[in-house]
Amino acid sequence: MTAGLANVRALAFDVFGTVVDWRSTVIREGEALGRARGLSVDWAAFAEAWRDGYYPAMDRVRHGALPWKNLDELHRIILDGLLERFAIAGLSEREKDALNRVWRRLDPWPDAVAGLTRLRRKFTVATLSNGNVALLESMARRAGLPWDAVLSAEHAGHYKPDREVYLRAAELLDLAPDEVMMVAAHKSDLRAAAGAGLRTAFVPRPEEWPNRRIDVSFEDAFDIGARDFLDLAAQLGA
Amino acid sequence: MTAGLANVRALAFDVFGTVVDWRSTVIREGEALGRARGLSVDWAAFAEAWRDGYYPAMDRVRHGALPWKNLDELHRIILDGLLERFAIAGLSEREKDALNRVWRRLDPWPDAVAGLTRLRRKFTVATLSNGNVALLESMARRAGLPWDAVLSAEHAGHYKPDREVYLRAAELLDLAPDEVMMVAAHKSDLRAAAGAGLRTAFVPRPEEWPNRRIDVSFEDAFDIGARDFLDLAAQLGA
Repeated sequence: MTAGLANVRALAFDVFGTVVDWRSTVIREGEALGRARGLSVDWAAFAEAWRDGYYPAMDRVRHGALPWKNLDELHRIILDGLLERFAIAGLSEREKDALNRVWRRLDPWPDAVAGLTRLRRKFTVATLSNGNVALLESMARRAGLPWDAVLSAEHAGHYKPDREVYLRAAELLDLAPDEVMMVAAHKSDLRAAAGAGLRTAFVPRPEEWPNRRIDVSFEDAFDIGARDFLDLAAQLGA
Repeated sequence: MTAGLANVRALAFDVFGTVVDWRSTVIREGEALGRARGLSVDWAAFAEAWRDGYYPAMDRVRHGALPWKNLDELHRIILDGLLERFAIAGLSEREKDALNRVWRRLDPWPDAVAGLTRLRRKFTVATLSNGNVALLESMARRAGLPWDAVLSAEHAGHYKPDREVYLRAAELLDLAPDEVMMVAAHKSDLRAAAGAGLRTAFVPRPEEWPNRRIDVSFEDAFDIGARDFLDLAAQLGA
Protein backbone atom coordinates (compact mmCIF):
# COMPACT_ATOMS: atom_id res chain seq x y z
CA MET A 1 0.00 0.00 0.00
CA THR A 2 1.38 3.40 -0.93
CA ALA A 3 1.73 5.99 1.80
CA GLY A 4 -0.95 8.25 0.33
CA LEU A 5 -3.61 5.66 1.03
CA ALA A 6 -3.00 5.56 4.78
CA ASN A 7 -5.90 7.93 5.45
CA VAL A 8 -8.52 5.89 3.60
CA ARG A 9 -11.30 5.09 6.07
CA ALA A 10 -14.14 3.86 3.88
CA LEU A 11 -14.49 1.83 0.70
CA ALA A 12 -17.39 2.68 -1.59
CA PHE A 13 -18.31 -0.09 -3.99
CA ASP A 14 -19.93 0.05 -7.35
CA VAL A 15 -22.40 -2.85 -7.28
CA PHE A 16 -23.69 -4.04 -10.69
CA GLY A 17 -20.83 -5.91 -12.31
CA THR A 18 -18.36 -5.11 -9.52
CA VAL A 19 -19.98 -6.91 -6.58
CA VAL A 20 -22.72 -8.91 -8.27
CA ASP A 21 -22.93 -10.86 -11.51
CA TRP A 22 -26.05 -9.43 -13.13
CA ARG A 23 -25.58 -11.29 -16.40
CA SER A 24 -25.72 -14.89 -15.24
CA THR A 25 -28.53 -14.20 -12.77
CA VAL A 26 -30.74 -12.53 -15.37
CA ILE A 27 -30.03 -15.35 -17.82
CA ARG A 28 -30.85 -18.01 -15.22
CA GLU A 29 -34.12 -16.42 -14.18
CA GLY A 30 -35.02 -15.76 -17.81
CA GLU A 31 -34.46 -19.38 -18.70
CA ALA A 32 -36.64 -20.49 -15.80
CA LEU A 33 -39.39 -18.13 -16.94
CA GLY A 34 -38.96 -19.35 -20.51
CA ARG A 35 -39.39 -22.97 -19.48
CA ALA A 36 -42.43 -22.17 -17.37
CA ARG A 37 -44.10 -20.19 -20.17
CA GLY A 38 -42.86 -22.10 -23.19
CA LEU A 39 -40.92 -19.10 -24.54
CA SER A 40 -38.05 -19.31 -26.99
CA VAL A 41 -35.79 -16.38 -26.16
CA ASP A 42 -32.04 -15.80 -26.34
CA TRP A 43 -31.75 -14.91 -22.66
CA ALA A 44 -28.10 -13.90 -22.89
CA ALA A 45 -29.02 -11.35 -25.55
CA PHE A 46 -31.99 -10.30 -23.43
CA ALA A 47 -29.81 -9.79 -20.34
CA GLU A 48 -27.24 -7.79 -22.26
CA ALA A 49 -29.88 -5.67 -23.96
CA TRP A 50 -31.43 -4.90 -20.58
CA ARG A 51 -28.09 -3.77 -19.26
CA ASP A 52 -27.33 -1.86 -22.45
CA GLY A 53 -30.52 0.12 -21.88
CA TYR A 54 -29.25 1.28 -18.52
CA TYR A 55 -26.86 4.05 -19.56
CA PRO A 56 -29.16 5.73 -22.08
CA ALA A 57 -32.03 5.61 -19.56
CA MET A 58 -29.91 7.20 -16.84
CA ASP A 59 -28.58 9.76 -19.28
CA ARG A 60 -32.16 10.86 -19.98
CA VAL A 61 -32.47 11.59 -16.24
CA ARG A 62 -28.99 13.10 -16.01
CA HIS A 63 -29.66 15.50 -18.85
CA GLY A 64 -33.16 16.43 -17.79
CA ALA A 65 -35.20 14.62 -20.46
CA LEU A 66 -36.83 12.59 -17.68
CA PRO A 67 -37.61 13.72 -14.12
CA TRP A 68 -35.89 11.72 -11.37
CA LYS A 69 -36.79 8.07 -11.54
CA ASN A 70 -35.17 5.45 -9.41
CA LEU A 71 -33.40 2.48 -10.93
CA ASP A 72 -36.29 0.06 -10.34
CA GLU A 73 -38.41 2.42 -12.43
CA LEU A 74 -35.79 2.80 -15.15
CA HIS A 75 -35.30 -0.97 -15.31
CA ARG A 76 -39.04 -1.33 -15.80
CA ILE A 77 -39.17 1.21 -18.63
CA ILE A 78 -36.37 -0.70 -20.38
CA LEU A 79 -38.05 -4.04 -19.69
CA ASP A 80 -41.32 -2.94 -21.28
CA GLY A 81 -39.42 -2.21 -24.49
CA LEU A 82 -37.59 -5.53 -24.36
CA LEU A 83 -40.74 -7.57 -23.89
CA GLU A 84 -41.95 -6.17 -27.17
CA ARG A 85 -38.59 -6.53 -28.93
CA PHE A 86 -38.13 -10.15 -27.80
CA ALA A 87 -41.82 -10.95 -28.45
CA ILE A 88 -42.50 -12.01 -24.88
CA ALA A 89 -46.26 -11.72 -24.60
CA GLY A 90 -48.87 -12.59 -22.02
CA LEU A 91 -47.07 -11.65 -18.80
CA SER A 92 -49.35 -10.17 -16.16
CA GLU A 93 -48.46 -6.89 -14.46
CA ARG A 94 -47.47 -8.91 -11.43
CA GLU A 95 -45.19 -11.17 -13.47
CA LYS A 96 -43.54 -8.20 -15.13
CA ASP A 97 -42.91 -6.63 -11.75
CA ALA A 98 -41.45 -9.88 -10.40
CA LEU A 99 -39.16 -10.16 -13.43
CA ASN A 100 -38.09 -6.54 -13.03
CA ARG A 101 -37.05 -7.28 -9.47
CA VAL A 102 -34.45 -9.78 -10.68
CA TRP A 103 -32.02 -6.87 -10.18
CA ARG A 104 -32.69 -7.23 -6.46
CA ARG A 105 -31.78 -10.93 -6.57
CA LEU A 106 -28.39 -10.85 -8.28
CA ASP A 107 -25.75 -13.29 -7.11
CA PRO A 108 -22.43 -11.94 -5.84
CA TRP A 109 -19.15 -12.83 -7.53
CA PRO A 110 -17.59 -15.78 -5.68
CA ASP A 111 -15.05 -13.64 -3.78
CA ALA A 112 -17.43 -10.81 -2.90
CA VAL A 113 -18.88 -11.79 0.49
CA ALA A 114 -15.59 -13.15 1.83
CA GLY A 115 -13.67 -10.13 0.56
CA LEU A 116 -16.12 -7.60 1.97
CA THR A 117 -16.19 -9.39 5.32
CA ARG A 118 -12.42 -9.18 5.48
CA LEU A 119 -12.24 -5.56 4.31
CA ARG A 120 -14.89 -4.59 6.87
CA ARG A 121 -12.52 -5.46 9.71
CA LYS A 122 -10.43 -2.43 8.77
CA PHE A 123 -12.73 -0.15 6.75
CA THR A 124 -16.29 1.04 6.59
CA VAL A 125 -17.71 -0.77 3.57
CA ALA A 126 -20.52 0.92 1.69
CA THR A 127 -22.31 0.66 -1.60
CA LEU A 128 -22.07 3.58 -3.98
CA SER A 129 -24.40 2.50 -6.71
CA ASN A 130 -26.92 3.89 -9.11
CA GLY A 131 -29.28 1.27 -7.69
CA ASN A 132 -31.93 2.68 -5.39
CA VAL A 133 -31.79 2.06 -1.66
CA ALA A 134 -34.63 -0.49 -1.57
CA LEU A 135 -33.04 -2.46 -4.42
CA LEU A 136 -29.62 -2.49 -2.75
CA GLU A 137 -31.04 -3.37 0.63
CA SER A 138 -33.10 -6.27 -0.76
CA MET A 139 -30.06 -7.53 -2.65
CA ALA A 140 -27.88 -7.32 0.44
CA ARG A 141 -30.33 -9.27 2.59
CA ARG A 142 -30.62 -12.06 0.05
CA ALA A 143 -26.93 -12.25 -0.86
CA GLY A 144 -25.53 -11.66 2.63
CA LEU A 145 -23.53 -8.58 1.65
CA PRO A 146 -22.29 -7.06 4.92
CA TRP A 147 -22.62 -3.34 4.14
CA ASP A 148 -22.13 -0.84 6.89
CA ALA A 149 -24.00 1.72 4.83
CA VAL A 150 -26.11 1.57 1.70
CA LEU A 151 -25.26 4.72 -0.24
CA SER A 152 -26.96 5.41 -3.51
CA ALA A 153 -27.29 7.87 -6.34
CA GLU A 154 -30.78 8.27 -4.89
CA HIS A 155 -29.28 10.17 -1.95
CA ALA A 156 -27.81 12.75 -4.31
CA GLY A 157 -30.69 12.98 -6.78
CA HIS A 158 -28.05 12.42 -9.45
CA TYR A 159 -26.69 9.36 -11.21
CA LYS A 160 -23.05 8.39 -11.50
CA PRO A 161 -20.84 9.55 -13.08
CA ASP A 162 -22.22 12.92 -11.91
CA ARG A 163 -19.79 14.40 -9.41
CA GLU A 164 -22.57 15.07 -6.88
CA VAL A 165 -22.96 11.33 -6.21
CA TYR A 166 -19.37 10.88 -5.05
CA LEU A 167 -19.32 14.06 -2.98
CA ARG A 168 -22.65 13.26 -1.32
CA ALA A 169 -21.32 9.84 -0.32
CA ALA A 170 -18.27 11.38 1.35
CA GLU A 171 -20.53 13.88 3.11
CA LEU A 172 -22.86 11.15 4.39
CA LEU A 173 -19.84 9.22 5.66
CA ASP A 174 -18.56 12.42 7.31
CA LEU A 175 -15.24 11.96 5.53
CA ALA A 176 -13.11 14.03 3.20
CA PRO A 177 -13.23 12.76 -0.40
CA ASP A 178 -9.67 11.42 -0.18
CA GLU A 179 -10.63 9.34 2.86
CA VAL A 180 -13.01 7.37 0.62
CA MET A 181 -11.84 4.85 -1.96
CA MET A 182 -14.14 3.98 -4.85
CA VAL A 183 -13.94 0.34 -5.89
CA ALA A 184 -15.24 -0.53 -9.34
CA ALA A 185 -14.82 -2.77 -12.35
CA HIS A 186 -15.54 0.17 -14.64
CA LYS A 187 -12.90 2.74 -15.43
CA SER A 188 -15.37 5.52 -16.23
CA ASP A 189 -16.77 5.26 -12.70
CA LEU A 190 -13.27 5.42 -11.21
CA ARG A 191 -12.24 8.36 -13.36
CA ALA A 192 -15.27 10.33 -12.22
CA ALA A 193 -14.60 9.36 -8.58
CA ALA A 194 -10.98 10.50 -8.90
CA GLY A 195 -12.19 13.74 -10.45
CA ALA A 196 -14.24 14.35 -7.29
CA GLY A 197 -11.17 13.69 -5.13
CA LEU A 198 -11.78 10.08 -4.10
CA ARG A 199 -9.16 7.35 -4.09
CA THR A 200 -9.66 4.54 -6.58
CA ALA A 201 -9.30 0.77 -6.80
CA PHE A 202 -9.85 -1.06 -10.06
CA VAL A 203 -11.08 -4.65 -9.79
CA PRO A 204 -11.70 -5.98 -13.30
CA ARG A 205 -14.52 -8.47 -13.82
CA PRO A 206 -13.86 -9.98 -17.24
CA GLU A 207 -16.84 -12.32 -16.85
CA GLU A 208 -19.24 -9.38 -16.80
CA TRP A 209 -19.15 -9.20 -20.60
CA PRO A 210 -17.68 -12.53 -21.71
CA ASN A 211 -18.44 -11.82 -25.37
CA ARG A 212 -17.21 -8.26 -25.56
CA ARG A 213 -13.77 -6.80 -25.68
CA ILE A 214 -13.67 -4.73 -22.49
CA ASP A 215 -10.71 -2.94 -20.98
CA VAL A 216 -9.51 -4.94 -17.97
CA SER A 217 -5.91 -3.69 -17.93
CA PHE A 218 -4.46 -2.19 -14.77
CA GLU A 219 -3.49 1.47 -15.02
CA ASP A 220 -1.27 3.70 -12.95
CA ALA A 221 -4.06 6.27 -12.99
CA PHE A 222 -5.81 4.24 -10.27
CA ASP A 223 -4.39 3.94 -6.78
CA ILE A 224 -4.84 0.18 -6.71
CA GLY A 225 -5.41 -2.59 -9.22
CA ALA A 226 -6.63 -5.84 -7.67
CA ARG A 227 -7.64 -9.19 -9.12
CA ASP A 228 -10.62 -9.56 -6.77
CA PHE A 229 -11.80 -8.41 -3.34
CA LEU A 230 -9.51 -10.80 -1.47
CA ASP A 231 -6.53 -9.43 -3.35
CA LEU A 232 -7.82 -5.93 -2.57
CA ALA A 233 -7.95 -6.84 1.13
CA ALA A 234 -4.41 -8.17 0.99
CA GLN A 235 -3.12 -5.03 -0.72
CA LEU A 236 -4.91 -2.81 1.81
CA GLY A 237 -3.60 -4.77 4.78
CA ALA A 238 -7.08 -5.87 5.86
CA MET B 1 -51.50 -8.65 15.80
CA THR B 2 -54.49 -6.87 14.35
CA ALA B 3 -55.44 -7.57 10.77
CA GLY B 4 -54.53 -4.08 9.58
CA LEU B 5 -50.89 -4.71 10.36
CA ALA B 6 -50.54 -7.66 7.99
CA ASN B 7 -49.04 -5.49 5.27
CA VAL B 8 -46.24 -4.05 7.41
CA ARG B 9 -42.95 -4.87 5.66
CA ALA B 10 -40.42 -2.67 7.41
CA LEU B 11 -39.85 -1.37 10.93
CA ALA B 12 -38.27 2.07 11.27
CA PHE B 13 -36.68 2.70 14.66
CA ASP B 14 -36.10 5.88 16.49
CA VAL B 15 -32.61 5.45 17.93
CA PHE B 16 -31.67 7.81 20.82
CA GLY B 17 -33.58 6.57 23.83
CA THR B 18 -35.47 3.89 21.91
CA VAL B 19 -32.59 1.64 20.81
CA VAL B 20 -29.67 3.05 22.77
CA ASP B 21 -29.26 4.36 26.31
CA TRP B 22 -27.63 7.75 25.72
CA ARG B 23 -27.86 8.79 29.37
CA SER B 24 -25.77 6.13 31.06
CA THR B 25 -23.16 6.10 28.29
CA VAL B 26 -22.63 9.86 28.43
CA ILE B 27 -22.42 9.72 32.23
CA ARG B 28 -19.90 6.87 32.15
CA GLU B 29 -17.65 8.56 29.61
CA GLY B 30 -17.96 11.87 31.44
CA GLU B 31 -16.94 10.27 34.70
CA ALA B 32 -13.91 8.69 33.04
CA LEU B 33 -12.93 12.06 31.58
CA GLY B 34 -13.48 13.71 34.97
CA ARG B 35 -11.18 11.24 36.71
CA ALA B 36 -8.50 11.64 34.05
CA ARG B 37 -8.62 15.45 34.20
CA GLY B 38 -9.43 15.93 37.87
CA LEU B 39 -12.78 17.57 37.12
CA SER B 40 -15.66 17.81 39.54
CA VAL B 41 -18.81 17.74 37.43
CA ASP B 42 -22.33 16.39 37.93
CA TRP B 43 -22.22 14.18 34.86
CA ALA B 44 -25.86 13.13 35.09
CA ALA B 45 -26.85 16.79 34.95
CA PHE B 46 -24.35 17.28 32.12
CA ALA B 47 -25.78 14.37 30.12
CA GLU B 48 -29.35 15.56 30.57
CA ALA B 49 -28.45 19.14 29.69
CA TRP B 50 -26.78 17.92 26.51
CA ARG B 51 -29.89 16.02 25.54
CA ASP B 52 -32.11 18.92 26.55
CA GLY B 53 -30.21 21.10 24.10
CA TYR B 54 -31.13 18.77 21.26
CA TYR B 55 -34.70 19.83 20.55
CA PRO B 56 -34.07 23.61 20.59
CA ALA B 57 -31.02 23.13 18.35
CA MET B 58 -33.00 21.09 15.84
CA ASP B 59 -35.87 23.53 16.00
CA ARG B 60 -33.49 26.30 14.94
CA VAL B 61 -32.78 24.24 11.80
CA ARG B 62 -36.42 23.22 11.34
CA HIS B 63 -37.59 26.83 11.45
CA GLY B 64 -34.80 28.24 9.32
CA ALA B 65 -32.78 30.10 11.97
CA LEU B 66 -29.82 27.84 11.13
CA PRO B 67 -28.94 26.33 7.76
CA TRP B 68 -28.85 22.52 7.64
CA LYS B 69 -26.40 21.11 10.14
CA ASN B 70 -26.09 17.44 10.84
CA LEU B 71 -26.51 16.08 14.35
CA ASP B 72 -22.77 15.75 15.02
CA GLU B 73 -22.53 19.49 14.33
CA LEU B 74 -25.54 20.35 16.49
CA HIS B 75 -24.19 18.21 19.33
CA ARG B 76 -20.94 20.12 19.11
CA ILE B 77 -22.63 23.52 19.25
CA ILE B 78 -24.51 22.40 22.37
CA LEU B 79 -21.34 20.91 23.88
CA ASP B 80 -19.41 24.16 23.49
CA GLY B 81 -22.07 25.90 25.58
CA LEU B 82 -22.04 23.14 28.20
CA LEU B 83 -18.27 23.21 28.63
CA GLU B 84 -18.61 26.84 29.65
CA ARG B 85 -21.69 26.29 31.82
CA PHE B 86 -20.12 23.33 33.67
CA ALA B 87 -16.75 25.10 33.90
CA ILE B 88 -14.89 22.36 32.06
CA ALA B 89 -11.74 24.10 30.84
CA GLY B 90 -8.55 23.06 29.14
CA LEU B 91 -9.82 20.48 26.65
CA SER B 92 -8.01 20.51 23.33
CA GLU B 93 -9.95 20.67 20.09
CA ARG B 94 -9.20 17.01 19.63
CA GLU B 95 -10.51 16.11 23.09
CA LYS B 96 -13.69 18.09 22.50
CA ASP B 97 -14.24 16.27 19.23
CA ALA B 98 -13.66 12.91 20.91
CA LEU B 99 -16.14 13.79 23.65
CA ASN B 100 -18.68 14.93 21.07
CA ARG B 101 -18.45 11.57 19.38
CA VAL B 102 -19.74 9.83 22.51
CA TRP B 103 -23.09 9.91 20.67
CA ARG B 104 -21.56 7.43 18.24
CA ARG B 105 -20.60 5.11 21.10
CA LEU B 106 -23.91 4.72 22.92
CA ASP B 107 -24.75 1.34 24.39
CA PRO B 108 -27.95 -0.40 23.29
CA TRP B 109 -30.68 -1.25 25.79
CA PRO B 110 -30.24 -4.87 26.91
CA ASP B 111 -33.02 -6.26 24.69
CA ALA B 112 -32.14 -4.23 21.58
CA VAL B 113 -29.71 -6.43 19.64
CA ALA B 114 -31.57 -9.66 20.39
CA GLY B 115 -34.90 -8.05 19.57
CA LEU B 116 -33.71 -6.53 16.29
CA THR B 117 -32.08 -9.79 15.27
CA ARG B 118 -35.37 -11.59 15.81
CA LEU B 119 -37.49 -8.91 14.11
CA ARG B 120 -35.14 -8.93 11.12
CA ARG B 121 -36.12 -12.50 10.31
CA LYS B 122 -39.54 -11.20 9.28
CA PHE B 123 -39.10 -7.48 8.56
CA THR B 124 -36.66 -5.04 7.06
CA VAL B 125 -35.25 -3.22 10.08
CA ALA B 126 -34.06 0.33 9.58
CA THR B 127 -33.12 3.32 11.64
CA LEU B 128 -35.21 6.45 11.28
CA SER B 129 -33.30 8.87 13.39
CA ASN B 130 -32.33 12.50 13.52
CA GLY B 131 -28.77 11.22 13.87
CA ASN B 132 -26.66 11.62 10.75
CA VAL B 133 -25.69 8.63 8.65
CA ALA B 134 -22.05 8.54 9.77
CA LEU B 135 -23.08 8.71 13.42
CA LEU B 136 -25.63 5.91 13.05
CA GLU B 137 -23.27 3.75 11.04
CA SER B 138 -20.43 4.15 13.57
CA MET B 139 -22.83 3.35 16.40
CA ALA B 140 -24.13 0.26 14.61
CA ARG B 141 -20.64 -1.11 13.98
CA ARG B 142 -19.64 -0.70 17.60
CA ALA B 143 -22.89 -1.92 19.14
CA GLY B 144 -23.61 -4.70 16.64
CA LEU B 145 -26.99 -3.32 15.61
CA PRO B 146 -28.07 -5.39 12.58
CA TRP B 147 -29.71 -2.68 10.44
CA ASP B 148 -30.73 -3.49 6.90
CA ALA B 149 -30.80 0.22 6.14
CA VAL B 150 -29.59 3.32 7.92
CA LEU B 151 -32.22 5.95 7.23
CA SER B 152 -31.80 9.41 8.62
CA ALA B 153 -33.29 12.87 8.76
CA GLU B 154 -30.19 13.73 6.74
CA HIS B 155 -31.75 12.00 3.72
CA ALA B 156 -34.73 14.32 3.84
CA GLY B 157 -32.92 17.52 4.77
CA HIS B 158 -35.49 17.84 7.55
CA TYR B 159 -35.57 16.79 11.18
CA LYS B 160 -38.28 14.74 12.84
CA PRO B 161 -41.07 15.43 13.56
CA ASP B 162 -41.24 17.06 10.12
CA ARG B 163 -43.48 14.97 7.92
CA GLU B 164 -40.87 14.87 5.12
CA VAL B 165 -38.61 12.59 7.18
CA TYR B 166 -41.22 9.82 7.48
CA LEU B 167 -42.32 10.06 3.86
CA ARG B 168 -38.75 10.06 2.57
CA ALA B 169 -38.04 6.90 4.56
CA ALA B 170 -41.01 5.11 3.00
CA GLU B 171 -39.89 6.30 -0.43
CA LEU B 172 -36.33 5.05 0.09
CA LEU B 173 -37.71 1.69 1.23
CA ASP B 174 -39.96 1.65 -1.86
CA LEU B 175 -42.96 1.07 0.39
CA ALA B 176 -46.27 2.78 0.98
CA PRO B 177 -46.34 4.68 4.29
CA ASP B 178 -48.69 2.11 5.86
CA GLU B 179 -46.24 -0.68 5.03
CA VAL B 180 -43.75 0.96 7.43
CA MET B 181 -44.11 0.87 11.21
CA MET B 182 -42.35 3.51 13.27
CA VAL B 183 -41.03 2.17 16.58
CA ALA B 184 -40.26 4.74 19.26
CA ALA B 185 -40.20 5.44 22.97
CA HIS B 186 -41.48 8.95 22.33
CA LYS B 187 -45.12 9.63 21.65
CA SER B 188 -44.49 12.86 19.72
CA ASP B 189 -42.43 10.92 17.17
CA LEU B 190 -45.16 8.31 16.80
CA ARG B 191 -47.91 10.89 16.45
CA ALA B 192 -46.00 12.59 13.65
CA ALA B 193 -45.33 9.22 11.97
CA ALA B 194 -49.02 8.33 12.18
CA GLY B 195 -49.86 11.72 10.71
CA ALA B 196 -47.72 10.81 7.69
CA GLY B 197 -49.57 7.48 7.34
CA LEU B 198 -47.11 5.14 9.03
CA ARG B 199 -48.05 2.42 11.48
CA THR B 200 -46.81 2.89 15.04
CA ALA B 201 -45.39 0.84 17.90
CA PHE B 202 -44.76 2.40 21.29
CA VAL B 203 -41.95 0.87 23.34
CA PRO B 204 -41.55 2.91 26.53
CA ARG B 205 -38.09 3.27 28.01
CA PRO B 206 -38.67 4.53 31.56
CA GLU B 207 -34.93 4.43 32.28
CA GLU B 208 -34.26 7.12 29.67
CA TRP B 209 -35.24 9.82 32.15
CA PRO B 210 -35.17 8.12 35.56
CA ASN B 211 -35.63 11.41 37.40
CA ARG B 212 -38.41 12.87 35.32
CA ARG B 213 -42.07 12.12 35.11
CA ILE B 214 -42.45 10.95 31.50
CA ASP B 215 -45.50 9.43 29.87
CA VAL B 216 -44.93 5.70 29.48
CA SER B 217 -48.58 4.63 29.33
CA PHE B 218 -49.85 2.53 26.45
CA GLU B 219 -52.47 4.22 24.28
CA ASP B 220 -54.98 2.90 21.79
CA ALA B 221 -53.81 5.63 19.41
CA PHE B 222 -50.77 3.48 18.60
CA ASP B 223 -51.09 0.20 16.72
CA ILE B 224 -48.90 -1.63 19.21
CA GLY B 225 -47.66 -1.10 22.74
CA ALA B 226 -44.74 -3.35 23.70
CA ARG B 227 -42.59 -3.66 26.80
CA ASP B 228 -39.37 -4.07 24.81
CA PHE B 229 -38.17 -5.30 21.41
CA LEU B 230 -38.58 -8.96 22.31
CA ASP B 231 -42.18 -8.33 23.28
CA LEU B 232 -42.58 -6.39 20.01
CA ALA B 233 -41.22 -9.40 18.10
CA ALA B 234 -43.65 -11.69 19.88
CA GLN B 235 -46.61 -9.43 19.13
CA LEU B 236 -45.60 -9.16 15.46
CA GLY B 237 -45.12 -12.91 15.10
CA ALA B 238 -41.40 -12.60 14.38
